[in-house]
This record gives sequence, structure tokens and C-alpha cells, in this order.
Amino acid sequence: MKKTRLCDLLGIDYPVIQAPMNLITGAELASAVSNAGGLGVIGPNAGAREETNDVVETGERLRQQIRKTKSLTNKTFGVNLMCASTDLRPDSKPFSDQCTKVVVEEGVPVAVLAGDEPERYVKQLKGAGIKVLHRALPVNVEIAKRAEQSGIDAFIAVGFEGGGHTGFHRVPTFVLVPQVVDALQIPVIAGGGIVNGRSMAAALALGAEGVYIGTGFIVATECPAHQNVKWAIISASDTSTTTIAGLGGIVLRALKTPLIERCIQMEANGNATEEITKLYRSGYRKGMLEGDRERGTFIFGAGAGSIQELKSAGEIVKNIIEETEQILQTL
Amino acid sequence: MKKTRLCDLLGIDYPVIQAPMNLITGAELASAVSNAGGLGVIGPNAGAREETNDVVETGERLRQQIRKTKSLTNKTFGVNLMCASTDLRPDSKPFSDQCTKVVVEEGVPVAVLAGDEPERYVKQLKGAGIKVLHRALPVNVEIAKRAEQSGIDAFIAVGFEGGGHTGFHRVPTFVLVPQVVDALQIPVIAGGGIVNGRSMAAALALGAEGVYIGTGFIVATECPAHQNVKWAIISASDTSTTTIAGLGGIVLRALKTPLIERCIQMEANGNATEEITKLYRSGYRKGMLEGDRERGTFIFGAGAGSIQELKSAGEIVKNIIEETEQILQTL
Repeated sequence: MKKTRLCDLLGIDYPVIQAPMNLITGAELASAVSNAGGLGVIGPNAGAREETNDVVETGERLRQQIRKTKSLTNKTFGVNLMCASTDLRPDSKPFSDQCTKVVVEEGVPVAVLAGDEPERYVKQLKGAGIKVLHRALPVNVEIAKRAEQSGIDAFIAVGFEGGGHTGFHRVPTFVLVPQVVDALQIPVIAGGGIVNGRSMAAALALGAEGVYIGTGFIVATECPAHQNVKWAIISASDTSTTTIAGLGGIVLRALKTPLIERCIQMEANGNATEEITKLYRSGYRKGMLEGDRERGTFIFGAGAGSIQELKSAGEIVKNIIEETEQILQTL
Repeated sequence: MKKTRLCDLLGIDYPVIQAPMNLITGAELASAVSNAGGLGVIGPNAGAREETNDVVETGERLRQQIRKTKSLTNKTFGVNLMCASTDLRPDSKPFSDQCTKVVVEEGVPVAVLAGDEPERYVKQLKGAGIKVLHRALPVNVEIAKRAEQSGIDAFIAVGFEGGGHTGFHRVPTFVLVPQVVDALQIPVIAGGGIVNGRSMAAALALGAEGVYIGTGFIVATECPAHQNVKWAIISASDTSTTTIAGLGGIVLRALKTPLIERCIQMEANGNATEEITKLYRSGYRKGMLEGDRERGTFIFGAGAGSIQELKSAGEIVKNIIEETEQILQTL
């Protein structure tokens, strides 16, 4: 496959970025993806926070993950940092400040800034020679244009198909990505519904120079998500996931489990989004790590319907690249 | 560009299907698309119905459109027929029966059966040597599999991005199309958000063998939609359209005009979908033909943000094919 500008920017073989997800994307998964030629990403710090409310301790937990990743790969890898100003984690700034400090101290090659105020950390990170990818949340073309001005190196556009939070604009990947590509000069990385060679080839056709894959890596052997979540992905159909609106209308996509059905009911009853958000958040660890389908949330994207197998992260990267090449050759 | 199975099936040069739309896709537009090497489609009969409640008169109006199309092109063209069982037009069966009879009598080469009971007309149409494309509404993988059993020649899968009605499953094109392609043997035609070479190349990468374009042809010179609608498409951004749920939860995508905002408010207030549907239907002619932005609906898809120019239908087909070829070559 032809290298894109993103490959050169990051020094990676294949423009496949493993999306960071709360609690389930640590050193093992990130290093496996990087070793396979993609970009593994540790994170997010919000995940570490759930273990502790101490700022310094959170930073040190992240430092351990970074050092462990370095011990497992000598390839480029990344760390996720939250830069949400409002909404989802209003009290997260001290934690993000501390994690950014650690990322700089440890000389991490790439930072993935998730949220809506990249300018908060861009200068500090780039000053330290760190490449900055920005995953905007919420996302649309206007937001992408503003973000580009902050000095980021590449922009990650995740459509309505994506699992977890995807913003309140509900613009699907298929229409979001080409419009963002037209609007920006820097490379655009497409996310939301990208799980195999078909969707990766399509993302490249839409003008993306890389893909951002979350759900596709939950089923990786190296991902500590519970087996029940992995099997739920394997058994999912095209209509298995649904969306609900959390704080500020920010969309959450997840499997239709009993807890999510309750959230939908609350939405229909006109309950406050704070209440709904509190409820679905209470289910993350129970679902993703403990596999509790009744009281937990199984967070993954609409592309799950195309995922059929559990594999190692290395095989996932290898297969998607081979499939993409094959499709592009056939066309 | 490589011909797909759909080109051979229909005897067309390029796998570009012009989507039929109420009142605005008659003989002039359909013949122009067919003359350019795509498939123009007259329709739908529901459109003719709005002029008259007489079954025979509806059929004769369609017959005139068919004859006019024949006088304007000697290429393959199609006619839209409604096969909705429940829902949107519960009293449409006598009209559809009559239109099907006319289509058979006139020897129309292709029928596009829209709705959820293709088996109602497949045998009659195929017995007369007519190729049958089926645009399922609602649509998902299960529905596609059942539809294939009815004997249709190709399946049209329109994602959540599409303008107008797209069913209640809200599955975006990017995840719907590859899963339908995997599930079926017959050619799949992708719709929803396809407006230019980028999205057509992406649709082919997803495994589609043709594209189904509505919004992209509203801006055609030959389309009688009001200039205000055409300019609204040209000026649209990625977030200009929205969706509301009509009868049975069937999603309608349209520009956020005052009437649609009222529908959204009614939805939030818990009004019955019958009432909401009645309101938005009242705006179709006012909006699409009379250009009344205040009291009308401007029905188009989320891909509008990528449309920048008014052109003839021939140029639209030519440009999309050239762009697609260029993108596929670059990749």
C-alpha cells in the first residue's frame, strides 16, 4: 500500500491508528499495534482516573504504562490526553495537565488530544518535539477548521458510526470525512465504522490518509476487555448498537443492553441528561471489564456487524492492510 | 472505469442510478441521465398521485412520462413503483397495481420497486422481461436477505445519510453497504451521501456495484425542483440537514427549515407520529416545487455539503465518473 503523509509524519509503516479507549487500551495492546506497523495508543488518562482521584498518582500510573510500552516496542506509539473544556469531565484539567507533563518528561513520540480545546496543550507538546493528533469531540467541518489553526499535525474525524462518544452533530463518516478533507490542509484520519479492508479502502477513497480503529481492536487478544464484550462484537448485526444523548447532547453509541434501554426510556420520559449520563457511566467498568451484560454497558461502534473473529492485534493490522491492498487492486 | 455486473445487467455504461423523487424526477431528467450513460428513473407513482386521486388517470400520467422519455432517449431507463405494505401510503395499492400494468404495457426496461414487499410485483415484472431493482424501505441486512429471495435483480441499500425517508434502523451507508454486500449474491447499489467521485469510489470500495444518487441530481438543470431548493443544497454544510421520525418511526432527513423545526418540537412534546407526518407532508410541494422555505420542506441528504455547483445531468454523470476514475488511479 502507498504510504500516506501520515506514515511519514509519524514514522509508521501503515496508517492504522488504534483508538484509545477507557481502561482497555494499555501497554500490551498499544505495543502490539505499533510492532505490527500501525500506531498503538495508550489511554486515555480519564481511564487512569477511575482508579484514583489523586492527580500525581494518575500521572505515575500513566508513566508506568509508557515505560512498559517502551519495554515492549521500539516503534512509534502514542498516548491519549483529554482536552475537553466543558462537559464530560469538567474537573479533568488538573489530571490532563499532569498527564501532559508526564508525556513530555517521558518523550512519548505522539499525543492524541481528545476533546474540544487542543490549543490548551499543543504548544507544550510540539515544543517538546511530540507529534499531535487531535480527535475533536464534538466534530464537524467548522470545528475541524478551527482546530487546524491550533497547530495540530493531523485531524481525526470520527463519524456517527463510532462507538462511545461521538459529539452531538450526528454526521456519519461517509459525509463527514470528505468534507473535512476538503476543508483542511493537514492529513485527516477517518474513524467510525472502519473495521476491515473494505472500510479502510473506502476511507482512503474519501480522502483520509489514515484510519482510527477502536471496536476492531477490542477483539484483539491483547485487549483486556471482557470476553463477553468481545463475543458481543462478534455476534453483533448491523442494527445491534444504538445511540443515546448524554451531557450537552453528546451522543453515546453502545450495544442495546438493559442499562442502555433504560437510558433510552429515561430520554423518552424527558429525564435530565445529567441523570442519564450518570447512569450509563456507572456501567462502563461493569460492562467492559467485568462483562456484566445486565448492569453494564458494552461500548462499541456500528461497524461491529462486520467483525467475525478474535485475533491478535498484529493479525488485525496485517489482515486489514492485505484486504485494503486487494480491494484497491481489484478496483 | 471497470464495468460492474450492474452495467451488464442493465445495459448501461456507468453504474450511476438517478434516484426517483416525488414530483421532481420526470422524463427530462431521467432521459438526460440515461443519455449520459447512467440510469435515469421516472417516478415515483406516488408523485403522480398527488395530482389526482383517480387510479386510471394516474396510470395515464405515468404512460405520458414514459412515452416522453422514450422520445428523448433510446437508452435504458427506469420507472419507480411503490410496494409499501403498511405505512406511508396505506391506500397506494390500487395506484401501484395500475402503474405496474402501465410499465408492463409500455415495455419499460427497468423498474425500481421501493418499499417493503417487492414480491408483490416481481413475478409480473420479470415475466414481462423487465429488470427489477429493489430499494428497501426500511432497510437492514435481514431485510436485504429476505428481499433477495423474492427474485429481484439488484438491491439498493440507502443509508441514514440519505435525504427523505430512509427507514427506522438509522444504519449509515458506511456500515450498511459492506454488510449487505457480504450477505447477498446479487449486485448491491449504495445510496445515501453519494455525491461525487470521492463518495462513489468509496461506495465501490465498500463492495457496491453501483450508486444511487438523489440529492446530487436535484441540482441538475433538468430537475424541476425550485431554485431555492437548489441553492439551499449548494449552500448547505455538513450539519445542515436533520432527521425526524415519521409514521412507524420511519426517518425523514431534510434541511432544518422552520416546518421541520416545528416537527422536532412536536417530537420532543410527544405528539403522535401521524400528526408529525401529516405536517411535514403538507410542506413537500410548497418546498420542493414552490421554493417556500418558511412553510415548505426542502428534502435532501447529508451529502449536500459536498455539492458546489448547478450543472446539467450529463455533466454531473461525466464529472462523477471522471473523479471516481482519478481517485481510484491515485490509490
